[in-house]
Amino acid sequence: MFRTFAPKFFNMEFTAQQIADFIQGTVVGDPSVKVKSFSKIEEGQPGTLSFLSNPKYNQYIYDCNASVILVNKDFEPEKAVKSTMIKVENAYESLALLLTVVEQSTPKKTGISSRAYISESATIGENVYIAPFAYIGDNVIIADNTRIHANCSIEDNAIIGKNSLLFSGVKIYNNCKIGNNCILHAGVVIGSDGFGFAPTDDGSYKKIPQMGNVVIEDNVEIGANSTVDRATLGSTLICKGVKIDNLVQIAHNAEIGTNTVIASQTGIAGSTKVGKQCVFAGQVGVAGHLHIADGTILGAQTGVPNSIKTPNQAYQGYPAVPVSVFRRSSVVYKNLSDLQKIVYDLQRKNSDLEKK
Amino acid sequence: MFRTFAPKFFNMEFTAQQIADFIQGTVVGDPSVKVKSFSKIEEGQPGTLSFLSNPKYNQYIYDCNASVILVNKDFEPEKAVKSTMIKVENAYESLALLLTVVEQSTPKKTGISSRAYISESATIGENVYIAPFAYIGDNVIIADNTRIHANCSIEDNAIIGKNSLLFSGVKIYNNCKIGNNCILHAGVVIGSDGFGFAPTDDGSYKKIPQMGNVVIEDNVEIGANSTVDRATLGSTLICKGVKIDNLVQIAHNAEIGTNTVIASQTGIAGSTKVGKQCVFAGQVGVAGHLHIADGTILGAQTGVPNSIKTPNQAYQGYPAVPVSVFRRSSVVYKNLSDLQKIVYDLQRKNSDLEKK
Amino acid sequence: MFRTFAPKFFNMEFTAQQIADFIQGTVVGDPSVKVKSFSKIEEGQPGTLSFLSNPKYNQYIYDCNASVILVNKDFEPEKAVKSTMIKVENAYESLALLLTVVEQSTPKKTGISSRAYISESATIGENVYIAPFAYIGDNVIIADNTRIHANCSIEDNAIIGKNSLLFSGVKIYNNCKIGNNCILHAGVVIGSDGFGFAPTDDGSYKKIPQMGNVVIEDNVEIGANSTVDRATLGSTLICKGVKIDNLVQIAHNAEIGTNTVIASQTGIAGSTKVGKQCVFAGQVGVAGHLHIADGTILGAQTGVPNSIKTPNQAYQGYPAVPVSVFRRSSVVYKNLSDLQKIVYDLQRKNSDLEKK
Repeated sequence: MFRTFAPKFFNMEFTAQQIADFIQGTVVGDPSVKVKSFSKIEEGQPGTLSFLSNPKYNQYIYDCNASVILVNKDFEPEKAVKSTMIKVENAYESLALLLTVVEQSTPKKTGISSRAYISESATIGENVYIAPFAYIGDNVIIADNTRIHANCSIEDNAIIGKNSLLFSGVKIYNNCKIGNNCILHAGVVIGSDGFGFAPTDDGSYKKIPQMGNVVIEDNVEIGANSTVDRATLGSTLICKGVKIDNLVQIAHNAEIGTNTVIASQTGIAGSTKVGKQCVFAGQVGVAGHLHIADGTILGAQTGVPNSIKTPNQAYQGYPAVPVSVFRRSSVVYKNLSDLQKIVYDLQRKNSDLEKK
Repeated sequence: MFRTFAPKFFNMEFTAQQIADFIQGTVVGDPSVKVKSFSKIEEGQPGTLSFLSNPKYNQYIYDCNASVILVNKDFEPEKAVKSTMIKVENAYESLALLLTVVEQSTPKKTGISSRAYISESATIGENVYIAPFAYIGDNVIIADNTRIHANCSIEDNAIIGKNSLLFSGVKIYNNCKIGNNCILHAGVVIGSDGFGFAPTDDGSYKKIPQMGNVVIEDNVEIGANSTVDRATLGSTLICKGVKIDNLVQIAHNAEIGTNTVIASQTGIAGSTKVGKQCVFAGQVGVAGHLHIADGTILGAQTGVPNSIKTPNQAYQGYPAVPVSVFRRSSVVYKNLSDLQKIVYDLQRKNSDLEKK
Repeated sequence: MFRTFAPKFFNMEFTAQQIADFIQGTVVGDPSVKVKSFSKIEEGQPGTLSFLSNPKYNQYIYDCNASVILVNKDFEPEKAVKSTMIKVENAYESLALLLTVVEQSTPKKTGISSRAYISESATIGENVYIAPFAYIGDNVIIADNTRIHANCSIEDNAIIGKNSLLFSGVKIYNNCKIGNNCILHAGVVIGSDGFGFAPTDDGSYKKIPQMGNVVIEDNVEIGANSTVDRATLGSTLICKGVKIDNLVQIAHNAEIGTNTVIASQTGIAGSTKVGKQCVFAGQVGVAGHLHIADGTILGAQTGVPNSIKTPNQAYQGYPAVPVSVFRRSSVVYKNLSDLQKIVYDLQRKNSDLEKK
């Protein structure tokens, strides 16, 4: 079947009881059933382990054919469940734990392909993987346990920390620095020139050379085909623990604070400083030279033209307003034409009244 | 001339009569004139074949120097046309037919470059083209007649069907499946990790391993630098006949129904199921965990926060409203400031009236 | 220190006096202090040259440790400045000049890697750099002094002018033409198929072959991972001096006029003709088949559904309205809910008045 995908994630089978013991759960049903893979609750198949966390999906558990299902401790089925259940404190967290264990037990590629290009002046750590057609420029440093997939280009003087993972076709421009435990997805570009031009008298633009770099701290993940421009001077800075989704643009001299999360297709303009622990939804735009306070939450497609000074507030809209205002205004917007009619009607009636 | 581009598409010349016979049209003018290339009606040159379909462009036909022009059967010129015309049922469809014939007669590249990397465990079909610096990982299957351009990376266990075409720099992550007759344009990324993180007590985020894959069915085309994330569990699914433009983001566990068309820079968030035969314009955003009914039409830059249950309806706006509502509200929006003034004015007058 | 980045840009040190002489400035302070690098005013370090142009940043100059600071002629410090100042007509322009001199004195890579693939029928000019894993197809022409970084793919019959720079992973489809002095950043795709499909009776779509090309004139810069589609017939045209930021989409048969500037994540739909000297901010969308007048300015996230005929006007909003209208309407939008309440209240009162 083309659509059902259940690769053998485990190298061996585990019983419900073995899994329950590992995640400190309680078995309800046959503790001896075995699983060797995962499945979604809507598509559960025998031999797989599924999970139920979001109550929206409760309906699926009664027809689910998964051998084992992780459920929250307080889940009480309304009718019979065919599968063995493992009750845990938090089914989603337990699933994440199991996935992480499986992921970590997957053998990692190592070795340096003779079909990669590695400058003689580059420094390569221990246990590094460099795939065919990766280009490693002069004076590049790649620290231990880092993996560079096929067709990546790491330009001169770039530094990549330990335990990092660059998927295929990542491009790092010269002088940029990537921390430890970072994941850069396929097609990411780090260090392209900032968009800086000075107008001239004949209407053409003169390029301002972009002489800075990009610094990405530890534990950062950046999604496929996202771009981070180098600073004009100094560094564009992505702080520790930042998570960036696909097709995001971070412009020159921007700073993204620790543990901030930025969803797909969002753009942060030049020199803007985003605080810590912010959460930006998809397709957000933040103008240049702003400060965005710690803990700011921005709804999808929000446009932010001014700095946000109060921390931990939620905004949405174009231009951004507090999310409660956005919701109220959106409701009126739908009926704006009716509202206008009422106003014109009132204007007429009022005029009549005045005449009397 | 730098701007005029008319490569010899045909290997030989054809007369107006030969072309008319092929597309079942009627010649008006000299049937013996010869063409060997195509041109736009605004830029028609001798020796080329042009076409007129959209009445907006009627004005150009009278000065057009193309030797032959395809026109709709019912086109009646208002003054003299220099070119030979071929009248057909539908000029655009006839042009498409001719372009397709020419395109299909263009010789296709075949052969496997010694400068590609192909794992010994990969299975390569007949008549396959693999360009230099393509990376083909372990256990990859590439079926007959498929063409892989330079610098593509196909990771372990990926499967690519027959007659498919991957332009340069396409990246397919491990375990993903591409159907038959698919076209993936340059820089497309299939199977990057879904954007899934669990918050932890210290404010940092823990990655949820993304163990699923992407399944792309037959006859799908995906535009340059678009990204499709792999599912957490199960598959992100792009159904048969879907057409996706450039720089589009499809998040993890999303499903895009048969023959749906998605224009550039649109984003579909995680776990959303889009129905069949939908048409989304550019820069649309659809939130996560929604169901979008079959045949839904979304105007440019629309933001969809909720599921759409009625099929075949058109929406636009942020947030999305029926397109007729959007149009009416947009008109009022332009005059919102005036409307407010009227209301304040009425409020004052009303207050005066009440006092009397 | 990970965050402070001050590479030795200069091969030797320069004194404040030497720099002042070069940029025709006046030294205030010790003319003999030496610098060997640049810094931002917020992060100025000894041995570096900084600058102050935007008055927003005036506060930083008093604590700045840069050895030399460029300032505008009319800048009068309110308290003591530790650094030597060089007063010039325009500090930003003088900085740009210095950066350009430094950038131009950086040695450029040359030579053709034996690990590139170059078709025997390709023509390569003098002093060209072609990095490992670049793919150069049949009949490609690459003119003098042009540099092609690693993992670029230049398909058959493409032409690239003199002094151009293609960063890593740029993909040029067949038959496309790039001018002189162009910069294409990493991951740019030029010439992918336009998004053209004809509906068929069974609900599926038939591809319209895209037989045209892309023509990019001289002095154009295109940002990382941006995409420019080839024309159906004729050429998609990017005129002289155009500057395009990252993740921008230019659709088939579009034309972008001379010296127009387009910021990140903007999309221009098919067949639209954008005039000269326009400035589009980020995340703008322009619909297809429109004409946008010369000198048009579009604010961030603007959506343009109709042609713009009057030159040199500024628009913003979705849909686009004159920027002054957008500002006024935005203010009302915030209070739309209150406005509605006032109207309903007036309606009630008015009805009461009428009864009397």
